[in-house]
Amino acid sequence: MMAKEYKRKVYLQDKPRLEAKQQMFTHFNSKREIEWVDSSDSLGRVLAKPVFANSSMPHYHASAMDGVAVIAEETFSAHEHRPIQLKKDLEFAYVDTGNEVPSPFDAVIMIEQVNEISEDIIEIIEPAVPWQHIRPIGEDIVQEEMLFPQGHIIRPVDIGALLASRTVRIPVVKKPVVTIIPTGNELVSPTDTISTGQLIEFNGTVFANYIHEWGGEPQLHPIVKDEPSSIKTTLLEAAKHADIVVINAGSSAGSKDYTVHIIAELGEVFTHGVATRPGKPVIIGKIEDTIIIGVPGYPVSAYLALEWFVRPLICEVLQVSEPVRQKLQVKLGRRIVGTMGAEDFIRMNIGYVNGEYIANPLPRAAGVTMSLVRADGMLVIPPTSLGYEQGEYAEIELYKPLEAIKESIVFIGSHDLTIDLLSSQMKAVNRNTSIMSSHVGSLAGIMAIKKGEAHVAGIHLLDPETHEYNESYIERFLADKEVVLYPFLKRKQGWLLPKGNPLDIQNVEDIVEKQAHFVNRQKGAGTRILFDMLLREAGLSTEEIIGYGREMFSHLSVAAEVKGNQHAVGLGIYPAAKAMGLDFIPVADEHYDLLMTRAFFESQQGKDLINVIQSEAFFEKVAGIGGYLLEKNPNPIYLGMRE
Amino acid sequence: MMAKEYKRKVYLQDKPRLEAKQQMFTHFNSKREIEWVDSSDSLGRVLAKPVFANSSMPHYHASAMDGVAVIAEETFSAHEHRPIQLKKDLEFAYVDTGNEVPSPFDAVIMIEQVNEISEDIIEIIEPAVPWQHIRPIGEDIVQEEMLFPQGHIIRPVDIGALLASRTVRIPVVKKPVVTIIPTGNELVSPTDTISTGQLIEFNGTVFANYIHEWGGEPQLHPIVKDEPSSIKTTLLEAAKHADIVVINAGSSAGSKDYTVHIIAELGEVFTHGVATRPGKPVIIGKIEDTIIIGVPGYPVSAYLALEWFVRPLICEVLQVSEPVRQKLQVKLGRRIVGTMGAEDFIRMNIGYVNGEYIANPLPRAAGVTMSLVRADGMLVIPPTSLGYEQGEYAEIELYKPLEAIKESIVFIGSHDLTIDLLSSQMKAVNRNTSIMSSHVGSLAGIMAIKKGEAHVAGIHLLDPETHEYNESYIERFLADKEVVLYPFLKRKQGWLLPKGNPLDIQNVEDIVEKQAHFVNRQKGAGTRILFDMLLREAGLSTEEIIGYGREMFSHLSVAAEVKGNQHAVGLGIYPAAKAMGLDFIPVADEHYDLLMTRAFFESQQGKDLINVIQSEAFFEKVAGIGGYLLEKNPNPIYLGMRE
Repeated sequence: MMAKEYKRKVYLQDKPRLEAKQQMFTHFNSKREIEWVDSSDSLGRVLAKPVFANSSMPHYHASAMDGVAVIAEETFSAHEHRPIQLKKDLEFAYVDTGNEVPSPFDAVIMIEQVNEISEDIIEIIEPAVPWQHIRPIGEDIVQEEMLFPQGHIIRPVDIGALLASRTVRIPVVKKPVVTIIPTGNELVSPTDTISTGQLIEFNGTVFANYIHEWGGEPQLHPIVKDEPSSIKTTLLEAAKHADIVVINAGSSAGSKDYTVHIIAELGEVFTHGVATRPGKPVIIGKIEDTIIIGVPGYPVSAYLALEWFVRPLICEVLQVSEPVRQKLQVKLGRRIVGTMGAEDFIRMNIGYVNGEYIANPLPRAAGVTMSLVRADGMLVIPPTSLGYEQGEYAEIELYKPLEAIKESIVFIGSHDLTIDLLSSQMKAVNRNTSIMSSHVGSLAGIMAIKKGEAHVAGIHLLDPETHEYNESYIERFLADKEVVLYPFLKRKQGWLLPKGNPLDIQNVEDIVEKQAHFVNRQKGAGTRILFDMLLREAGLSTEEIIGYGREMFSHLSVAAEVKGNQHAVGLGIYPAAKAMGLDFIPVADEHYDLLMTRAFFESQQGKDLINVIQSEAFFEKVAGIGGYLLEKNPNPIYLGMRE
Repeated sequence: MMAKEYKRKVYLQDKPRLEAKQQMFTHFNSKREIEWVDSSDSLGRVLAKPVFANSSMPHYHASAMDGVAVIAEETFSAHEHRPIQLKKDLEFAYVDTGNEVPSPFDAVIMIEQVNEISEDIIEIIEPAVPWQHIRPIGEDIVQEEMLFPQGHIIRPVDIGALLASRTVRIPVVKKPVVTIIPTGNELVSPTDTISTGQLIEFNGTVFANYIHEWGGEPQLHPIVKDEPSSIKTTLLEAAKHADIVVINAGSSAGSKDYTVHIIAELGEVFTHGVATRPGKPVIIGKIEDTIIIGVPGYPVSAYLALEWFVRPLICEVLQVSEPVRQKLQVKLGRRIVGTMGAEDFIRMNIGYVNGEYIANPLPRAAGVTMSLVRADGMLVIPPTSLGYEQGEYAEIELYKPLEAIKESIVFIGSHDLTIDLLSSQMKAVNRNTSIMSSHVGSLAGIMAIKKGEAHVAGIHLLDPETHEYNESYIERFLADKEVVLYPFLKRKQGWLLPKGNPLDIQNVEDIVEKQAHFVNRQKGAGTRILFDMLLREAGLSTEEIIGYGREMFSHLSVAAEVKGNQHAVGLGIYPAAKAMGLDFIPVADEHYDLLMTRAFFESQQGKDLINVIQSEAFFEKVAGIGGYLLEKNPNPIYLGMRE
């Protein structure tokens, strides 16, 4: 209870995001400065003032054709049967495209329609209409006309209009300087050597790239130690020179989170904590007329906070609209719980299966950068909502082009390293196709096919009764669905062990005997089913296994965990051991097959997938990993019945 | 007849655009080279190969909180009423966020939930769940996992994932080098002084900016004279070093259009002429294994040809999809005629009025850069279509964000220089609003309001009977429509004369007497109605006026025309004379008013517009032009009847 009160004291309040933004703007004194640049070098810049044409284009009556300039009135009687002749200089003049049409000529006849009798005499057989084939002064641009209003963002074609009208220098908004201050004793630069307990500082670089993309001028400050005096000096200096200051980490309420106190001391704090998950520990304040924004250290929180609070300020200085993401109505594949009183920002995968967009949440932890990297879209749950039920429809903001989502093959199921290679190879053959894979285990893959949420599932489910793979499970769960089981590959499962096998583990009994820490897989994973069978066959119970209750979601995660702990052992595939430099003792050769709906298998995308699987290039790539036996032209197994 | 046969000989054939593109690709040998760059410097680059994580993130079990690391099992008995005490180092360790959780601890308790008894003893009142508040190894990224496939375009967040996993150098596709060769004797650089008959070379710079935007590496060659030997040397040299060569102008069939012959001589020509309007005279060929594309000199043709043929090649090298523009269904405000056998690319204005998107064509001439600058969208009429009738619906490609189109005020009617200022001022107040204006004359403005195609029309129509402005016209044409006439300003109309008034024109009689060239306005323009009235009152006929038949569409166009011809005279507003440095003799004080639908007038946008008109800032800007008298808080006149 005491602790919670302390927390309340530190977070001034969890302010609604839009309220915090609005309040920030009441304090923001946008210093919009003008800078003159060469028009030819102005791509993407924003006009600070309206721009008027310096000159007309064309700036004289120009011939639009190669031909002769004539006085139209004098040609009116020309006819196929009564050609008329014209004398050079007096009655006509030769002109090329772009040449001036000299006075008093007022029409141009194309050279192809002129019969040249001698050097000075031509014959024409058709009258010219006044002003035909002439580009009059200002046809394109009239001197003094407004070419662009202020706030216009210069595109390549605009540079053409500027140069054509001899408007060679233009006033643009000076890019607002955003100083980025990374803080933290544990931070090291990505190129430094790193030890345990140290974190790579990468947020600053990411911020700089976002700010650059939004039209700001990022200035990345070197890492500052978690010392109030250093932070104070740096903030004061930055506030003097920057238009906006972003300070990273130290925005929370921990013992070393000095930032909020320092800003309050040097200036003013308007907001400490916004009502969002993730992203809550944001500070918004002001020092010496410069807005200071403290963003959390966790990457997802940090990047969202940057978009919520820094991007609008940059757009305000540039006087452009904030970009708006495309929206899409999707069906939710799972129940998604919201936080009462706070907005939830859930990163989502979206698959297009059977004509429906189906979205599933990615990991919600604010530290998982990959959840933002992998996001196809963002579901925002308002503070008044408790979330959504499975199967409900919701509107989400797209993070990828709809086309890319529409053309993805949705792969849900067991993890195997070859699936990424397959995705890569599919893209190499047809760059518009990709495989969007979620690693949820074999059983969940079968369920995704059953619910119509996936095109393909990777499965390796051992039937403990028959010691056969996959088919019996499909018959059990998908009896009413017409599916195809495509024999994909055989792979070695075995014990993943720290280099040198320090505990000398040879079998499942050793794990119990030597009190090894077992790194388990999630429920429904084929590897877990295999382990459970080994336990049962050895007459052991799960309670005897240290670590049984904790679940990893991929072979590589298990291997990474084993690598970090001399007492650990895991069960997984050979390539994972190889990738992490672990010892490996084979336990079983298992069948990892691809389950698909028959409709997908017979579709063009399905055929393309099979072609890529059977391609030499893919076989070579898989051979490069080692430990796999790909099936050459296997017979697909048709299961289930027509729906 | 002869001429046409010649033409057929020169244009090999008008090939369908997509066929030309396909054929080009059969000859394109994409040299996709790999270049290693720093991840932190890779924004927007395209991965040449899949990228795998170099390290896990976190690379150790990290505390997710400031707190104490404990062994979860030892805390199971803790309870509010039965706190348990733990000894430092042996039973707990202090950890900050990001610190390693040392073995054998397997859970973290937040510092706020810890009661510190002494330096070495803490008390807890709640059990810890195993692995709570710990970010396990690889929670975010597991070493060796595939982060991105080849072909992925790096975004800011991706740089975070790369650096977090210590993947500091990545293989990207080397940007394809596109050499741009501008040719023409008449060309001068935009910064040079220019004389009549010379044209500013700006296409090359525009090309370079497009190519840069598409991810290529443009190399702009200096202007090359129209001499076969220079062109030959330059092409040969460029073909050796570039991935793609673009040569501008000389692609047509005129006497100086050598390009096609030179390419044929040095290599091979696949296409000369594509079946498009504009854009027809395109050359596609090959020299020494490098694709050479000859694009026309007219800007619109040139930029379209670049997008049709150069962008796909760049995308092919980069292995990315060509960007696709958003489509929109629009109602056509006018009849649009297509060319049988050729694709027509019609630049369109789109207005959102009364809940409908209404599109009207911009000038179709290939030389009008501003038609592309001003385009909201592009209507593509297929070769098999003769076009569309007024009121028909058609799908067009958007060149501007739909939001921007939706929030524009559609202004159709007479031209006045203050309208651009008004647009600029509206944007300054609300950057999302802008005024999209078409200058078609007062009467056409009234018709646009009648047809529901505009929000506002600027009109100045003198009734020759009553010598009053505007109201009688509205009553005649809009009796069934509820509209508001907003008295906007008074302005001086008068004779626009070359500096010094060389013909000494004082009135309409002088124009006839001194055989001046009159620069007329289009039918339905208020200025033309005024001129016709002056003629009638003087007892003169339009046949007596030299130049009466030729029409200009704005005051500035008239002024520009007068400026270029010592024998010319025009009728127009004072600011146009001032802008062009012309003499001005006043003829009438006219009322230029704003006609709006009542619905628009009473809408928020309408109110915003009136507020801006009545703002001090706008009054000041208009005063800066001179010659205007703005109405201060006039009474709007309600006309017509409720529909």
